[in-house]
Amino acid sequence: MHQEQHLRNSDFITDAVIGLSDGLTVPFALAAGLSGAVASNGIIVTAGIAEIVAGSIAMGLGGYLAGKTEIEHYDSELRREHNEVEAVPEKEKAEIRDIFADYGLSEDSQTRIVEELAKDKDKWVDFMMKFELGLERPTLNRARNSALTIGGAYVLGGFVPLLGYFFTDLPLQGLMVSSALTIACLFIFGYFKGKATGQPPIKGAFKVMIVGIIAAGAAFLVAQFLNNNL
Amino acid sequence: MHQEQHLRNSDFITDAVIGLSDGLTVPFALAAGLSGAVASNGIIVTAGIAEIVAGSIAMGLGGYLAGKTEIEHYDSELRREHNEVEAVPEKEKAEIRDIFADYGLSEDSQTRIVEELAKDKDKWVDFMMKFELGLERPTLNRARNSALTIGGAYVLGGFVPLLGYFFTDLPLQGLMVSSALTIACLFIFGYFKGKATGQPPIKGAFKVMIVGIIAAGAAFLVAQFLNNNL
Repeated sequence: MHQEQHLRNSDFITDAVIGLSDGLTVPFALAAGLSGAVASNGIIVTAGIAEIVAGSIAMGLGGYLAGKTEIEHYDSELRREHNEVEAVPEKEKAEIRDIFADYGLSEDSQTRIVEELAKDKDKWVDFMMKFELGLERPTLNRARNSALTIGGAYVLGGFVPLLGYFFTDLPLQGLMVSSALTIACLFIFGYFKGKATGQPPIKGAFKVMIVGIIAAGAAFLVAQFLNNNL
Repeated sequence: MHQEQHLRNSDFITDAVIGLSDGLTVPFALAAGLSGAVASNGIIVTAGIAEIVAGSIAMGLGGYLAGKTEIEHYDSELRREHNEVEAVPEKEKAEIRDIFADYGLSEDSQTRIVEELAKDKDKWVDFMMKFELGLERPTLNRARNSALTIGGAYVLGGFVPLLGYFFTDLPLQGLMVSSALTIACLFIFGYFKGKATGQPPIKGAFKVMIVGIIAAGAAFLVAQFLNNNL
């Protein structure tokens, strides 16, 4: 229970953090950049929503495919360990001895562990996978959850910076409202992120906010430069 | 060596895959969406580059922060295990016995392992971290590499779809060149991704290409719909 609960929380938080922070930051920065380059809020909102659709699908599917890649990687390592246990059992046994020697176990105990493990080849291989390679088979369920969490968090985060352009007439007005809203949300989100990960929440809030401002500021400056020089 | 090499490859591949696939897909889809909504390639290139700057910073910093969050998570679990080993040593010993019981080790061996491990509390805690919780302390170096790999791959991928708009005059011409270039790159990238992860390369190529087309197609249709209805 202890283990399961902690790992799941961490996965979900990591996914939500990635999706939300990118969702707040990228459409915000894109909209900010376009604010000085186009005459109507309609194009900014269109571009922003196109970005949210593309970004959430790319990140969600990206997360899903990364999860599937991990499963395939696990399976190919599993076949490899099975072959090694058949082909070079003494080498594999020495690897197990080394693991336990590192934790200070006696030679005698090392030998007993190895001989008892080697009785069942499937369990032996499972043991090598987990304790030598540090790999656990990720579930497809996990890959799906990751995809939905990242994609959903991206959409949620992405609409915040666009709100400013819905309720104003001119791009630069939209930019001011959008910046105020987004920076406030980055701060609040950073606060809860800090709490969830056991950091000091105020430090977490400032960290996330400053990252968002840097990304948006850089995109804004580059877009301004291009607009003036293209 | 075996372990290190495999894990590092997998991390690098995962990071590069995420960065490249998002970099190819998101600016491609954004540019495609804008192609039907604006009159000049200049705005599309400006928006695309603003997106690449924002996206690479957000993804790179996102990867870096995710790595740092993992380190903080590890450290808080480490403190927790230290406290548990002090407060409820018999419970922690029973957890170790359970781990080895699952692999078919005799009661006698379980007892010997536990008693030898418990002699050194630091090693005992390290053992619990790795073998009960499945956690290894990620390095800050790893977080930095991840940030640079994801960010760099995003920039690299992102310029491909924009190339079409540099060398044409009208958005819809740009869209045709961009689509041809990007879809070809998605196919090639998917082929090498498949090879690197031990999948059938042609299957990998089609998978990545179709994902890119879906994301770009969805963004294009949504942008068209908004442009016609806003």
